[in-house]
Amino acid sequence: MKKIVIGIDIGGTNTAFGLVEKHGEVVAKSSIPTQGYSGAEEFTRVLCKAIKQLILRCTEKYKLVGAGVGAPNGNFLTGTIDFAPNLKWGNIVPLAKMIKNELRVPVKLTNDANAGALGELLFGGAENKKDFIFITLGTGLGSGIVSGGKIIYGHDGFAGEMGHVIVKKNGRKCGCGRKGCLETYVSATGIIRTAKQLLKHDKNSSLHQIKHNEINGLEIYKAAKNNDKVAIESFDFTAKILGKAIANAAAYLSPEAVFLFGGLANAHELLLKPVKKYMEENLMPIYKNKIEIVQSELKEGEAAIAGAGALIYKYLATQSSTKN
Amino acid sequence: MKKIVIGIDIGGTNTAFGLVEKHGEVVAKSSIPTQGYSGAEEFTRVLCKAIKQLILRCTEKYKLVGAGVGAPNGNFLTGTIDFAPNLKWGNIVPLAKMIKNELRVPVKLTNDANAGALGELLFGGAENKKDFIFITLGTGLGSGIVSGGKIIYGHDGFAGEMGHVIVKKNGRKCGCGRKGCLETYVSATGIIRTAKQLLKHDKNSSLHQIKHNEINGLEIYKAAKNNDKVAIESFDFTAKILGKAIANAAAYLSPEAVFLFGGLANAHELLLKPVKKYMEENLMPIYKNKIEIVQSELKEGEAAIAGAGALIYKYLATQSSTKN
Repeated sequence: MKKIVIGIDIGGTNTAFGLVEKHGEVVAKSSIPTQGYSGAEEFTRVLCKAIKQLILRCTEKYKLVGAGVGAPNGNFLTGTIDFAPNLKWGNIVPLAKMIKNELRVPVKLTNDANAGALGELLFGGAENKKDFIFITLGTGLGSGIVSGGKIIYGHDGFAGEMGHVIVKKNGRKCGCGRKGCLETYVSATGIIRTAKQLLKHDKNSSLHQIKHNEINGLEIYKAAKNNDKVAIESFDFTAKILGKAIANAAAYLSPEAVFLFGGLANAHELLLKPVKKYMEENLMPIYKNKIEIVQSELKEGEAAIAGAGALIYKYLATQSSTKN
Repeated sequence: MKKIVIGIDIGGTNTAFGLVEKHGEVVAKSSIPTQGYSGAEEFTRVLCKAIKQLILRCTEKYKLVGAGVGAPNGNFLTGTIDFAPNLKWGNIVPLAKMIKNELRVPVKLTNDANAGALGELLFGGAENKKDFIFITLGTGLGSGIVSGGKIIYGHDGFAGEMGHVIVKKNGRKCGCGRKGCLETYVSATGIIRTAKQLLKHDKNSSLHQIKHNEINGLEIYKAAKNNDKVAIESFDFTAKILGKAIANAAAYLSPEAVFLFGGLANAHELLLKPVKKYMEENLMPIYKNKIEIVQSELKEGEAAIAGAGALIYKYLATQSSTKN
């Protein structure tokens, strides 16, 4: 029987899970709704039952040796989900322990961005790197920071929130209650806010042809590709803020690379290239021409599952190396 | 014979060194000039001879088991001193190797702030902490960042330069060639610049009684203690910038504590207390009321030697644990 792990990606609406083999391939996957249960206990039972069924359905015989979980506000150090506003399971949910009780294998849990960073490390573009930042650009900006081959968790498990570094005094209002956080500028939501602001001063932009509430990252991208001034400027402004933020991050971490993940990260000429330019302009001399800005090599649809798989593979590897 | 290490603190003018016993006590110390040799080779020979003499002079019999070096631009990963502007020994000097050849014991080298952080970890106030930032306030602002009990070195050994995080757009000119770096505001030099700026708009300050080029951190401190408005404002402005910078650093690192070292760190009411206040005001909610701002517990005169000693003790400990 082949040893395998399960990677679980808990989202606000759906929970996806898949069998992840040791090189990162997701050999089988499925999902259940995240909501609609009496609580975290029932969710866990339904999830674990579905996982066992998934294993049985496979033509190859697998022996489950561990489970990794990526979840919003997932805390690696405690194995709990802490104050996740969208999950409604209570303040602190010991989900790792609950899943372990059902599956009877080691379970590790962290937040989605840290799981993504570990996916990049074990299965993606960071295979030979030990110091890098993984940034996921979605509704917000999530980040996982790897230093010396390990995730930086901080004393309480909450390190790696680069999206909440304040980059502008009295800047845009952020969901965290403060103003000027990086993610209010650099994220899908952020670039939409930028474009809408710029549209007020440009009557001729092609983006006026789209309903105001339907403007999204993809539309801005397409408009920019068609030389729309507002769209191009929106990308440039986003890139400038991210480039400067990475230049500052380098002074703490001196990373070898920054991996960008998510829809916006596909915009090579419009985002990655100018991010690199603005970063270089703002770096302290000793860091210049050393840091790559690259697109994540994780597959968009499976990254979170693979990342959760990487989390538990990494844990199992340290366990076996300690025994030796 | 008692096992002991030597801690070496290379400064621009003098190189101090001392025997550091395992709890951090410096049992004997001495120094030689850093300048005036034909090059790094001669310096190393003179240094190592002086170290051997120091050991022989001790009444107790010691067996040297390692040497730690703290040096400007010292690179832990390579054991070299890279492009140190004040040392004039060439671009890249393999000092760790050179000292090892003379002393025939393991030698580890890093920069002064990282050595200080390790001193705090092994012998100071961070003994039970694994995630903290050590900040030394002198001519500039040096920092050593500890995550999960280990210094963050980055991919090239140059991480932990918090003094060069840009905190103000088009701010003060910095020695690194850029503008607005944290150390141009938060350091002995920084607070002097602040006070001199404020003095232009205040004819009544007691600081006008001191010669312009003799205004220093201590004079500003004394004036503030005597309720001088400019001096008090200088401290408050410094504290505000540092407090905000630490709030941003928390989003990367989530440290348990920040240790401040150097003359200014003695100013508890004038600096540490307002730094804490401004930090709390600017922290993301999840980090609030968790981070201590404390004065370093290292002895001012011996911190660099003890820190260099900690560096090599930590290395020797990992070596022996790998063997077991």
